[in-house]
Amino acid sequence: MGGPLKISPLAPKAFPDIPVIDGVRFSTIAAGVRYKGRTDVMLAELIPGTSIAGVFTRSLTRSAPVLDCQAKLGSDPSQGAAIVVNSGNSNAFTGQHGVASVEAITTAVSNIMAVPIERVFTSSTGVIGEPMAHERIVDALGTLKASLAEDSFAEAARAIMTTDTYPKGSSAVVDTKNGKVKIAGMAKGSGMIAPDMATMLVYIFTDAQISQADLQSMVSEFNETSFNCITVDSDTSTSDSLLMAATGASGVHVGRDESGFRAALRDLMLDLAHQVVRDGEGATKFVEINVTGAVNAQEAKVHAMSIANSPLVKTAIAGQDPNWGRVVMAIGKSGATADRDLLSIKFGDILVAEKGWVSPTYKEEQGASYMKQSDLVINVDLGLGLGEATVWTCDLTHTYIEINADYRS
Amino acid sequence: MGGPLKISPLAPKAFPDIPVIDGVRFSTIAAGVRYKGRTDVMLAELIPGTSIAGVFTRSLTRSAPVLDCQAKLGSDPSQGAAIVVNSGNSNAFTGQHGVASVEAITTAVSNIMAVPIERVFTSSTGVIGEPMAHERIVDALGTLKASLAEDSFAEAARAIMTTDTYPKGSSAVVDTKNGKVKIAGMAKGSGMIAPDMATMLVYIFTDAQISQADLQSMVSEFNETSFNCITVDSDTSTSDSLLMAATGASGVHVGRDESGFRAALRDLMLDLAHQVVRDGEGATKFVEINVTGAVNAQEAKVHAMSIANSPLVKTAIAGQDPNWGRVVMAIGKSGATADRDLLSIKFGDILVAEKGWVSPTYKEEQGASYMKQSDLVINVDLGLGLGEATVWTCDLTHTYIEINADYRS
Repeated sequence: MGGPLKISPLAPKAFPDIPVIDGVRFSTIAAGVRYKGRTDVMLAELIPGTSIAGVFTRSLTRSAPVLDCQAKLGSDPSQGAAIVVNSGNSNAFTGQHGVASVEAITTAVSNIMAVPIERVFTSSTGVIGEPMAHERIVDALGTLKASLAEDSFAEAARAIMTTDTYPKGSSAVVDTKNGKVKIAGMAKGSGMIAPDMATMLVYIFTDAQISQADLQSMVSEFNETSFNCITVDSDTSTSDSLLMAATGASGVHVGRDESGFRAALRDLMLDLAHQVVRDGEGATKFVEINVTGAVNAQEAKVHAMSIANSPLVKTAIAGQDPNWGRVVMAIGKSGATADRDLLSIKFGDILVAEKGWVSPTYKEEQGASYMKQSDLVINVDLGLGLGEATVWTCDLTHTYIEINADYRS
Repeated sequence: MGGPLKISPLAPKAFPDIPVIDGVRFSTIAAGVRYKGRTDVMLAELIPGTSIAGVFTRSLTRSAPVLDCQAKLGSDPSQGAAIVVNSGNSNAFTGQHGVASVEAITTAVSNIMAVPIERVFTSSTGVIGEPMAHERIVDALGTLKASLAEDSFAEAARAIMTTDTYPKGSSAVVDTKNGKVKIAGMAKGSGMIAPDMATMLVYIFTDAQISQADLQSMVSEFNETSFNCITVDSDTSTSDSLLMAATGASGVHVGRDESGFRAALRDLMLDLAHQVVRDGEGATKFVEINVTGAVNAQEAKVHAMSIANSPLVKTAIAGQDPNWGRVVMAIGKSGATADRDLLSIKFGDILVAEKGWVSPTYKEEQGASYMKQSDLVINVDLGLGLGEATVWTCDLTHTYIEINADYRS
């Protein structure tokens, strides 16, 4: 790769202030897994009683760390837990070597942190198919343990970055009927797979007391409408992972029906998901796509993703071109039900097309002016039923090609 | 758009010599449908008794001309036929106005050429969603009829171009058991949808005597492994159409089991399909993707298309990067069955990865050297069954973004 990537024009102004979450401590280190001169390993220590839930990539070629995490989700929370994450190498498509690396790392963490191995969760993000220098991570564990601190959240969010142009964090303080709890999450990701450096990773922590079953239920549900509704380039990582830990340190019990907590967690997950899109490789536009009037919600999402993933739609957006013809094309090819003559399309509030043709009220200048904004909304109504879906994406620019075509020489 | 597009580096050296096909005559004109200073309408006249078969886009938002052609496929061939094609406007997503344009054109052609309206086939390619200046085509029909000639095939191939950088033609002379027959085909297309100018169009002519049922059977069968196995950008036009006409003028009867004719037609369709890929927007590499060892042929094609459509695979190829990790990623996300540890991947003859990891014999320099060629082959064996498929694609380059993001100002 060439020089450092420029910070995305869609980035938030600053990393947010994140409150301390009781029951979890973080540390980071520059272990030299692959990168030089930056932190690349993050350790999180979780107190006994911490519930852990997770959702993972559906890829059939998923990495050894993902398979290991999935197998451990149901394990007994009574004796504490640890999460260790490295950037630089994804340990994906590394065969039996990859399994051995996961074993080496989780065994060492288990020993040094005195937690059962089935409560050690590890993720790796970076190059695919290269042997993992896991001994560098193992060797760093002593130092990592010694530097654990409650307030190292921002450093942790930075250590897990690969081609991200900014660290991603979000938090909330929620008044539940049983008392106040806090939630804080971090994410990394900038392509579904960045330049040979895979993956979206998300870690969310709360001091609420939540059963593993309730936690998993909420995480799985909100994942469907947040991280599973974003796309940068239609490519799916072999390593995508989201882990959420509820330490219970606040002593405040939260059930799966607690509406305030649900809303706060849903918003936090959506915020992190949007931050990932805003750091999409080469992105200059953040685009929300709303599909209504589909036969059902599933078909609405198929249409929305077909629009969001279309290279022709994405290049038109990059060119600030109100090219609704390409939206029609993407609907037509999606495979889900559509009737050309019942479709209507709006860019923001501007009615562009209806009844199978351009709207008589539409003026190209209006559309062209709208497309200059950095945040865009495309609304499609299919006129068929009650199914609806919203997804988020970014545009497809020269910089995406630069990042992905020109790095491994 | 900016200036004229540069001819694709993958273009054939010259347009091939095409033999005259008895029973069909062509003419072209600069009718000014949208373009200035170039031909944009092509008329083909077919003698009585000509069988016509066709395959069309599966898009649910397909254009009025496509719907009209599909409805006419079974009509009586005894009284001749005509095909009229314009570039510059696709007459897609034009509502009732689009239907009216098709009626106006086909009625006028029927009258002036004295063929039944149900034997007048029309295609349109170009801008989506703009009203069609069909009167310019109707007004040109007298001149078009007067200039019909047996040897105007190359001019016809040129008149149907939109953002194509070269005209596409292919031909064959076949010795069948009943005698000699000729086949000639033309195609246009450079994105699945080019910059607001849709579509792949294909017209094939033969002087063989073939029943409509036999012709349709062969065309449908060979379409599956030729035009339905190419992808430039995963986007599907609202107007894709292939028509094949068998004039019977040779007096040589050909059945659907005539092996020489079948082989020649299959090769000709594949040749035209490859020419379309070689003119893919911004293409600098022509890529064949072979998937073997899949559970069945359908799953093999799902894997092959997932690789061929992956922006990360396509940008890696543009960057001449032997990035097999992205091939693994594309297999994993395809949704079809795969086992990471049974996969093997070759670039050309070079074994790159096997048994879930990089091959011990593989050297990065070998892969890097191979990727410099303009024609590449990626071979994937899934190690599961007997299903196989081959598809063809091109790379994803800056020029694709330029063509598609920067044209409508």
